[in-house]
Amino acid sequence: MSQFSDIEIARAADKLPIQEIGARLGIPAADLLPYGHDKAKVGQRFIDGLKDRPDGRLILVTAINPTPAGEGKTTTTVGLGDALNRIGKNAAICIREASLGPNFGMKGGAAGGGYAQVVPMEDMNLHFTGDFHAITSAHNLLSAMIDNHVYWGNDLEIDTRRIVWRRVVDMNDRALRQITASLGGVTNGFPREAGFDITVASEVMAILCLATDLDDLQRRLGDMIVAYRRDKTPVFARDLKADGAMTVLLRDAMQPNLVQTLENNPAFVHGGPFANIAHGCNSVIATKTALKLSDYVVTEAGFGADLGAEKFFDIKCRKAGLRPDAAVLVATIRALKMNGGVAKADLGGADAEAVRRGCANLGRHLSNLKGFGVPVVVAINHFSGDTPAEITAVQDYVREHGAEAVVCRHWAEGGRGVEALAEKVVRLAESGAASFAPLYEDGMGLFDKIDTVARRIYHADQAIADATVRQQLHAWEAQGYGHLPVCMAKTQYSFTTDPTLRGAPVGHDVPVREVRLSAGAGFVVAVCGDIMTMPGLPREPAAERIRLSEAGHVEGLF
Amino acid sequence: MSQFSDIEIARAADKLPIQEIGARLGIPAADLLPYGHDKAKVGQRFIDGLKDRPDGRLILVTAINPTPAGEGKTTTTVGLGDALNRIGKNAAICIREASLGPNFGMKGGAAGGGYAQVVPMEDMNLHFTGDFHAITSAHNLLSAMIDNHVYWGNDLEIDTRRIVWRRVVDMNDRALRQITASLGGVTNGFPREAGFDITVASEVMAILCLATDLDDLQRRLGDMIVAYRRDKTPVFARDLKADGAMTVLLRDAMQPNLVQTLENNPAFVHGGPFANIAHGCNSVIATKTALKLSDYVVTEAGFGADLGAEKFFDIKCRKAGLRPDAAVLVATIRALKMNGGVAKADLGGADAEAVRRGCANLGRHLSNLKGFGVPVVVAINHFSGDTPAEITAVQDYVREHGAEAVVCRHWAEGGRGVEALAEKVVRLAESGAASFAPLYEDGMGLFDKIDTVARRIYHADQAIADATVRQQLHAWEAQGYGHLPVCMAKTQYSFTTDPTLRGAPVGHDVPVREVRLSAGAGFVVAVCGDIMTMPGLPREPAAERIRLSEAGHVEGLF
Repeated sequence: MSQFSDIEIARAADKLPIQEIGARLGIPAADLLPYGHDKAKVGQRFIDGLKDRPDGRLILVTAINPTPAGEGKTTTTVGLGDALNRIGKNAAICIREASLGPNFGMKGGAAGGGYAQVVPMEDMNLHFTGDFHAITSAHNLLSAMIDNHVYWGNDLEIDTRRIVWRRVVDMNDRALRQITASLGGVTNGFPREAGFDITVASEVMAILCLATDLDDLQRRLGDMIVAYRRDKTPVFARDLKADGAMTVLLRDAMQPNLVQTLENNPAFVHGGPFANIAHGCNSVIATKTALKLSDYVVTEAGFGADLGAEKFFDIKCRKAGLRPDAAVLVATIRALKMNGGVAKADLGGADAEAVRRGCANLGRHLSNLKGFGVPVVVAINHFSGDTPAEITAVQDYVREHGAEAVVCRHWAEGGRGVEALAEKVVRLAESGAASFAPLYEDGMGLFDKIDTVARRIYHADQAIADATVRQQLHAWEAQGYGHLPVCMAKTQYSFTTDPTLRGAPVGHDVPVREVRLSAGAGFVVAVCGDIMTMPGLPREPAAERIRLSEAGHVEGLF
Repeated sequence: MSQFSDIEIARAADKLPIQEIGARLGIPAADLLPYGHDKAKVGQRFIDGLKDRPDGRLILVTAINPTPAGEGKTTTTVGLGDALNRIGKNAAICIREASLGPNFGMKGGAAGGGYAQVVPMEDMNLHFTGDFHAITSAHNLLSAMIDNHVYWGNDLEIDTRRIVWRRVVDMNDRALRQITASLGGVTNGFPREAGFDITVASEVMAILCLATDLDDLQRRLGDMIVAYRRDKTPVFARDLKADGAMTVLLRDAMQPNLVQTLENNPAFVHGGPFANIAHGCNSVIATKTALKLSDYVVTEAGFGADLGAEKFFDIKCRKAGLRPDAAVLVATIRALKMNGGVAKADLGGADAEAVRRGCANLGRHLSNLKGFGVPVVVAINHFSGDTPAEITAVQDYVREHGAEAVVCRHWAEGGRGVEALAEKVVRLAESGAASFAPLYEDGMGLFDKIDTVARRIYHADQAIADATVRQQLHAWEAQGYGHLPVCMAKTQYSFTTDPTLRGAPVGHDVPVREVRLSAGAGFVVAVCGDIMTMPGLPREPAAERIRLSEAGHVEGLF
């Protein structure tokens, strides 16, 4: 175990100039747009020139259902990337950008930890290269244009009660969840109910992460539904002529960001959509660019494998034509213990029996992942208190279920501590065992898609929904949206919709409370529980302690 | 006259790498934080090391009252900077950053014009280096912390009817001017009236532009008044412990931005506060940094000299200890004609008599400027239709009033066309004639300060205000704010508060409708008329035409 904190380790990093990181990938300095000395965007023209190159191998890092004990998906992604480079592969990692707002609520830090980190950590948790600000601006320009259109006569006959396009801010601000806007008289417009979401919940964010280039971006932006008329026909962003200006605002943001790990290996950090009402993966353009420039690309998906991996496969890979070569399923002894029924306060004691019981959760994810035709290896993200008996319990369980579990010590040792996993990943990926296929065909009905995910991935008896929901799905099928994949918005803490049910529950239904159409992003969201799209600040927000130190360092953010 | 548009000229610019521009000022590449290849921030540590260097000479560019005919203050600033370099001086310019939102309403472009431009023009009218986004984030973090404080029990006993801190967005969005927030039940807080201003109207913007370093920034942020209690005692941002986190968000934004003119001369572009409810000047840190690195620094102030120059002298120079060496008063024949009573539609015809009548406006600004102890030269910003008789009329008038008027052709010719002005500026500045003093002493009463500006600068009979306003000013004096300068918020189109009265009106009063305290920025705002802090979009917003061309250029923004 390290005696240093994450931020101390990050500050002591021996960073290379970002041009040197780019050079390792074959990116000329002229095609890197620097942001300071340790961050850069990869120029669009350079990316356009890569089309004919072969792709490297794509590795997904996913996890068991998250618990308060922590799993370490990002640290494993970083550590595996470093380890692959150590064993002679040219590897890059692809992860998501952090949202600014939540850092001022609870302690932040979304760049790994220990000796498996991406740097510069402070910048990555602040404005970074401005991508999220650009998304906020583009989103709110459309919002302003909607109300402005109504103000000047409403030629499109928008029903102001049915404006579904809200505003966004990258801040935890519960006071903005529900507002009445346009008050104060004639010059301020027509009063109506409105509200704000946090920026990462914006459909523009999901689109930026799924678009293949600027033309595709603009087409998708134009396809977004912003409101309905009294006859319930949709009004699109294109009808408001907002798609061109939004694309201009997003032009720089579309270029993937390049930074580095503590071991000076390339890391693409780009995009960060919500993992409930959106698909929770870094951008397609970053992943595809990395695949053109590396032998191996290690990426991750939000939450546990039931949500994150399923969406990675069924939304991102399906739509972008990606074919993953292997998956790493991350677990910790502590989290498995919690899945085995141990309370957080009792995690201190060794309990191999509880670990074995908790492996039911792991086993279900393992079989789910194999169902996508992707070979899987389990990574045991090692904590210092783990006992040999507990580790053996996991390894035995996983072996019984036809896979292998490798102990990984990236947090304490960096890439060196995860070379065994890297070797295993290479063997799996180069075995040719992968034959990826998404869970369902495009042609399946929308409700059947939801039901298929519920049964096959959540191991539920069925998905259930009232007539209103089913009619809405049928209406969208009639309007030509039936081919879209579904995006499940469900608690990440359980296979069920009850966050308290850990392990591998059976006998549950998945009630679909509401469905939403993200016509630009290209998926239908099935809301199965309470989904919060605008967080609040806690009683004592982290912001109260965040400040610059005498030395100019950021304190309190991590 | 050039046959090319501003944007065509800007795109054809032969830009140098920003490191070469920095090198000309003696800034090592390691102390420049690049944003792409043609923009950079000057590192704080480098700036800290300049303290003991001598200052260069400071030249203010200001103008007669603006008319729809256009005056060309920024182009003159750029042209004069280029010309000073041409005649052998090491000169830099300091101008403001453009606000993003308004570009989507009317045509944008705030980087000069013709052959007197700062580049990269597209970036400067879009996200640039993200400063305004950082200001928006810092401002709205404080907003969220106020409502969050009330939500969790309101220990500070904030009167929610008296929260004076609004929210901001860098967008023209009239629907947000007045809202009811925190609707929707217990989890969303206590409903109250609220609203949004555009980001440039934020007190955080004014503070960023007046703060001398990060410590001063944080102190000023803490000093901001966000609300009042039932007993009317103020609640400060510091009471909410927001000042530290806001400073962290503004750390990068505090570093001045360096770009270049078309002639590859250094241009600092940093900050952009409103020129009505704030002081309308670029940042003190940029101006001071430029003065340490150059023989000559040419800067400008918002609106005409009655507002812009007065605030530059009485707020910026007073507080920052700057001592301007000369002022350039910009006029055009067309604008003088309008001041002489000609309608915009009739500007096509030559009319030396109207020009002479309009010189009354020029003459008053000339004497006002001299009153600050700063030698003045008049720049006639040449348009192709100007006749020799019209130009002679101005030159004669100015000579009669003890100054000189120089014809400038920077728009068509770049720095070459304004060398005569540069020579004159150098003679004035090096004559030692300047003995700058602000208009009034710190110790004068607040209302007397307002009255002094009204009488001495606006040539009014008096300032008038009802008892409420006077009592408020007395209350602030009692609370220790009496030493602050005043910031006049008045129409820019006239010396009076009636925008239709051009020329040099007499016999008017200046009614003060309302006063506001910007305790962090350090001034008292006297509102003398309708002041709009959140613009709306027009019927056909420019956004509808803004898009990327096939070649990847931004179209419709200029």
